[in-house]
Amino acid sequence: MGRHFFLEDFPYFCIINSIMQFELTTDLLEDIKNAIEAKNNAFLNEQMHDLHAADIAIVINQLDLKEAEYLYDLLDENLASDVLLELEDDRREDLLATFSTKEIAEQIDNMDSDDAADVINELPEEIQDEVLSQIEDIDQASDIADLLNFEEGTAGSLMAKELVSVYMHDTINTCMDEIRRQTDNVDVMYAVYVVDENNKLIGMLSLKKLIISHPLSRIDEIYNADVQFVKTSTTTEEVAEIMQKYDLVVLPVTDQFGRLVGRITIDDVVDVIREGAEKDIQRMSGISDDVDSNDKLWRLSRARIPWLLVGMCGGIIGSRIISTYEGQIQIHPEMAFFIPLIGATGGNVGVQSSAIIVQGLANNTLLGDKIGSKLFKELGVGLINGAICASLIWGYASIIENWKLAATVSVALFTVVLCASFLGTFVPLTMNRFKINPALATGPFVTTLNDIIGISIYFLVGRLLYTVL
Amino acid sequence: MGRHFFLEDFPYFCIINSIMQFELTTDLLEDIKNAIEAKNNAFLNEQMHDLHAADIAIVINQLDLKEAEYLYDLLDENLASDVLLELEDDRREDLLATFSTKEIAEQIDNMDSDDAADVINELPEEIQDEVLSQIEDIDQASDIADLLNFEEGTAGSLMAKELVSVYMHDTINTCMDEIRRQTDNVDVMYAVYVVDENNKLIGMLSLKKLIISHPLSRIDEIYNADVQFVKTSTTTEEVAEIMQKYDLVVLPVTDQFGRLVGRITIDDVVDVIREGAEKDIQRMSGISDDVDSNDKLWRLSRARIPWLLVGMCGGIIGSRIISTYEGQIQIHPEMAFFIPLIGATGGNVGVQSSAIIVQGLANNTLLGDKIGSKLFKELGVGLINGAICASLIWGYASIIENWKLAATVSVALFTVVLCASFLGTFVPLTMNRFKINPALATGPFVTTLNDIIGISIYFLVGRLLYTVL
Repeated sequence: MGRHFFLEDFPYFCIINSIMQFELTTDLLEDIKNAIEAKNNAFLNEQMHDLHAADIAIVINQLDLKEAEYLYDLLDENLASDVLLELEDDRREDLLATFSTKEIAEQIDNMDSDDAADVINELPEEIQDEVLSQIEDIDQASDIADLLNFEEGTAGSLMAKELVSVYMHDTINTCMDEIRRQTDNVDVMYAVYVVDENNKLIGMLSLKKLIISHPLSRIDEIYNADVQFVKTSTTTEEVAEIMQKYDLVVLPVTDQFGRLVGRITIDDVVDVIREGAEKDIQRMSGISDDVDSNDKLWRLSRARIPWLLVGMCGGIIGSRIISTYEGQIQIHPEMAFFIPLIGATGGNVGVQSSAIIVQGLANNTLLGDKIGSKLFKELGVGLINGAICASLIWGYASIIENWKLAATVSVALFTVVLCASFLGTFVPLTMNRFKINPALATGPFVTTLNDIIGISIYFLVGRLLYTVL
Repeated sequence: MGRHFFLEDFPYFCIINSIMQFELTTDLLEDIKNAIEAKNNAFLNEQMHDLHAADIAIVINQLDLKEAEYLYDLLDENLASDVLLELEDDRREDLLATFSTKEIAEQIDNMDSDDAADVINELPEEIQDEVLSQIEDIDQASDIADLLNFEEGTAGSLMAKELVSVYMHDTINTCMDEIRRQTDNVDVMYAVYVVDENNKLIGMLSLKKLIISHPLSRIDEIYNADVQFVKTSTTTEEVAEIMQKYDLVVLPVTDQFGRLVGRITIDDVVDVIREGAEKDIQRMSGISDDVDSNDKLWRLSRARIPWLLVGMCGGIIGSRIISTYEGQIQIHPEMAFFIPLIGATGGNVGVQSSAIIVQGLANNTLLGDKIGSKLFKELGVGLINGAICASLIWGYASIIENWKLAATVSVALFTVVLCASFLGTFVPLTMNRFKINPALATGPFVTTLNDIIGISIYFLVGRLLYTVL
């Protein structure tokens, strides 16, 4: 590394460029739309030429359906099926609806079996069989049909059938021939699996070992029997956990008899992880179904109304509690001033506590005997932050309002923060114990609970202090 | 697949078991603690024997430091350094503090350069150089020293130096020899990179191609020039986006002159993705620093107090607004009953809307010209859900309370839901435009804003209706 290079010394320094994230600007989109209007295929082909399928999909997502169809038809067959996979679900559905079953079958023939099965699964049920029957490659069609049997959310639904396996008693040389034969169906080869005469998975051979071993070595002398695998019935969450924990790039899948039936690659699992995080965020935000901003209006509304109604029930209970203090409010209307502050602070503290607990649970860093100490720690945090908030509000309210109200608000606020810390910790832990997703607790549920409890404490303290002081 | 196999036909069906997620029970932990106390190494070795490093780390995380030290010392050298990497940060720090710099150097010598650099980065600064100078493998030490120069959050800090590269004019045969030589330093080989005489990256060779090509083929006849790479200065977020978008397992890294200097594997990026999602959840929950439930009390408190104070300021503004209606509350104390309901519903709607927008932004499914239509859609959802909530509360309040209050609450609630939908959409979009992380908007910020606006609308509507009706 002692030498220095200068750009001008090497004219070919710019042959390849570092990968730039493609960005679809409004101008470029406009140009593409105009070119489609003018049927300027030369321009369109030039624009699409250097783009990755994922980027072309971004363009097609933004076009009107007619334009999307036009552009899609320009793509060559292999690229077209890659692009199809990267499209947003709604757009893919709409685009496929304009194809004949024959055309769909052709697209699907080019895909890996797992992707193909996903696409067929999204098709209207009445045409699924027709599409399957029109796939030319019989093996592909039968692989897809197999995959369609697995329940969503299981390893079976996530795996692809394409893989390379070799027989344990072969030599490296025979095995190389076998690999050359089998790799016609495999795009990327992550590992070579070793099976016995019954196709039962007994180990794996790393590609590295395959490359560096002597051609006449026998597989059963060099394979690694310490292979990690899952069954078709394992849940996708567990698959994601296993692959993350053990840093795996590919994981073989067996049937219940231990026979090798497929493999799951990390890119599919990355999607599972991301979708899991997104679902958690939605649950935390009080959205009950898995929706995104492109879904239809009524679906978006329906996904949100349940937790709004829960929140309203909380509000109604709050109104009943306050109504029992109607007389006091008439005499001391200033009591009402701090209702929002008490509610908001209790809600915020509860959400903070439960977010920390939900994450600890998701990361498996919270184990049985640590739960008691977490509760104490959260109460400690509540004690500190409650004391800070209470003293500040005491300072403010004793200057602006009167000292009776100041005492009421600060004592109530301190108690509410402590309570909210406790509930924010206790509720998700309890939910988790009863196998309910604790992310549900972080959102409207804990907030609503803390609202009700906060109001009760506030007015109770108020009545006591105004009477006693 | 027509044949059926029965377990009893194949006595060796149970040679390997499907990978089971290891679960540390309280009983097992107790047994291990007792065995450490009794120095029962036979039992401990037996327990640890079949466990993966990640699982042993889970055990060590749960022990007292003295016990952890004892168990860790029993592990063989290679396993020990794998376990070290899987430990929780605090535990690793504590454990390393009990080692001499010589012992730390030995551990680090066994690691991949990226992991080694991470561990050294965590050590107290005063011993970092000493540890580096005691690493026996000079190449490893210099690789680590190189990696330490890269800023955190860049591709340089995420990459490892171990990789296999071949020269473009070699044949497959020469190249195989070179690979056999280089793979001493490489644990898993994902791809072979092709470089020119200046070590400039010009393409890659898939392992598959390497295996299936003729031994006398020349690399420059078969390599793939369409290689995607990043520079050392690319941000880790961008690396994660690129690898996800293009489904990559490994990504080469070059310096500013295009020379190959390292590679990033998907397992490191999975961590980036997961940590990113966790940070977003914390931001949404009003936690300002990146903390977890194992952090110290004062750190946890400090990370939460800023947004609590923001919420309190909102509450104080709310109290000023309500105080201007003091006279009205004295006459109609029932006005105070529904303050929590208005605040809570506004907050919930705002959080729902912003969560959807934040996710759309994170997924890049929200592009320039779609923003207007998103605003309209969210207002549509607000219209529907606002109407549902308002009619329900009208029904309730007109029966339980009086119809003036019912009218006030339902009109105010409808308006508040609409406003909250608008703000929940508009605020994160605006923040994003000004390059502020929109996840900040989803939590306390939008909730506080909606609280204030909700209270204002409620009392304004109340004054109008009570005067007019």
